[in-house]
Amino acid sequence: MEQSFVAWAKMRAHRLPQVKLGIGDDAALMDVGGTQDLVVTTDTMMEGTHFRSAEVELRRIGRKLVRVNLSDLAAMAAEPEAVFLSMCVPTSDKRAADWIASEIYEGVCEVCEQHEVALAGGDTNCWDGPLVLSLTATGRVFDGQVWRRGGAQAEDLIVVTGPLGGSITGKQFDFTPRFDVAEQLRGHVGVHAAMDISDGLSVDLLRMCDASSCGGILELDKIPISDAAKDLVETSGKQPVEHALGDGEDFELLLAIAPDSFAEVQEILGAESAIAVGEFTSRTGLWMREGSRIYQLTLSGYVHGR
Amino acid sequence: MEQSFVAWAKMRAHRLPQVKLGIGDDAALMDVGGTQDLVVTTDTMMEGTHFRSAEVELRRIGRKLVRVNLSDLAAMAAEPEAVFLSMCVPTSDKRAADWIASEIYEGVCEVCEQHEVALAGGDTNCWDGPLVLSLTATGRVFDGQVWRRGGAQAEDLIVVTGPLGGSITGKQFDFTPRFDVAEQLRGHVGVHAAMDISDGLSVDLLRMCDASSCGGILELDKIPISDAAKDLVETSGKQPVEHALGDGEDFELLLAIAPDSFAEVQEILGAESAIAVGEFTSRTGLWMREGSRIYQLTLSGYVHGR
Repeated sequence: MEQSFVAWAKMRAHRLPQVKLGIGDDAALMDVGGTQDLVVTTDTMMEGTHFRSAEVELRRIGRKLVRVNLSDLAAMAAEPEAVFLSMCVPTSDKRAADWIASEIYEGVCEVCEQHEVALAGGDTNCWDGPLVLSLTATGRVFDGQVWRRGGAQAEDLIVVTGPLGGSITGKQFDFTPRFDVAEQLRGHVGVHAAMDISDGLSVDLLRMCDASSCGGILELDKIPISDAAKDLVETSGKQPVEHALGDGEDFELLLAIAPDSFAEVQEILGAESAIAVGEFTSRTGLWMREGSRIYQLTLSGYVHGR
Repeated sequence: MEQSFVAWAKMRAHRLPQVKLGIGDDAALMDVGGTQDLVVTTDTMMEGTHFRSAEVELRRIGRKLVRVNLSDLAAMAAEPEAVFLSMCVPTSDKRAADWIASEIYEGVCEVCEQHEVALAGGDTNCWDGPLVLSLTATGRVFDGQVWRRGGAQAEDLIVVTGPLGGSITGKQFDFTPRFDVAEQLRGHVGVHAAMDISDGLSVDLLRMCDASSCGGILELDKIPISDAAKDLVETSGKQPVEHALGDGEDFELLLAIAPDSFAEVQEILGAESAIAVGEFTSRTGLWMREGSRIYQLTLSGYVHGR
């Protein structure tokens, strides 16, 4: 949806003091009267837009639906707890609606079991439209330990937790939400901001910069490029780094790490899960450094000046 | 969806001890570490199934979406707190997708403001399919005060909170979730079970009976019939009581009230909001009393033996 709609929606929405963080972050954060806050996120996947059920196993779609939402919880450093599944199941499909619903449900249950999350409710409807799946996930986090998008500071390092690009070849369905990172770094003072990379590094980094009122300078040669992205180059005609910058659905985490904490963070996570790819800067916007020169980066992932 | 699917789904779902009540009730109930439990419900509305956007003002659809969910919270005696809105907006519509999304959103915001509920997050997508709206609502309730479906006991009175039937003429969109009933009776020991009447009195009463392992005997001449249901008779060819039994979306509450508490409940709510229409019985199934005889009632609302 248009960012202008999201901005208007954020402004228009009714707010309450117990909602500490509402529209605009990976998930909402609510005070529920306990020692931990509640984290809630919701994501919808539609036939033809997010998947083609004729081409992908239904259980795999169900698994992705949960993982996409859990990834938002991991990005807030939350522990996942429960999911609520809504399905609009086509009756026009030659396969019985019951079978479609059951296969999706099985995939959802599999991932719930992997992450010890309860499937606690939902709503299943049949209709003559395409398959639509909506999931809401809840988790919990201690107040001082939640990660937000808006905490990056100038000179923080831009850190990603794994190789990027080419998820369309499989990782978009079969990734693991980075709860391992959340668990190992939760409460670490060096983590200033976090979000998951769902729409591509360049788009999501700019969102973090905007939320943090700063800019980011990427060092293109430091960006870890996945094998899938390298393979895609043969058919896409793009450079590998363009895939790493522009492809969506990596579901790695993007972190803003205080410079003096990076060595420790890297020691905790391992070098392959803590890769510095640039630094935040007080000058707003998205930039790339090449040698001693700095160029502006456009959102498409296409690089000016090369 | 088939009840067999719901039964299977309930059995299959991964469970955790902190989820006190999962699939099968109006909403899920979760221990979130505070003095109050969290109540979560989700409902989806689809173009052509739940509304026709060419015939109904979009804001009215948005208002209904919130009310349907809040009604589930009222039925659990919960206080509503936040909602999360997912929209799949058609781009094929001649009206701009942005306008459709904004109008729905406005309707959602209006009801949120009426009930002091935060709109705390969501997900808006455009696609070439029909309009699909999904909402998750959260609320809170003290542990001992939550109402469930499964607490009705033999000899409890079957009580409804207002006239039934004919909601298709307008009430299906413009009802008010019965938080007034929840607020006035919350914690009252005489309320043994509650749910909202969304699919019609006969269907929903049977659900309450099944959840409570008992049966129900309705006294047809005591069922309050709405003016809308009486008006519908001219065109429907049905009897008024058939509308009151079979029409859905009344969104009144169905309560199981201990016999010795009914006078007090009626005093608290007023006679027009506490109407005894029969009693629960140890013999399972749905029955109707006419004079001294008892007949079985079918789910369609059609009455045997008349």
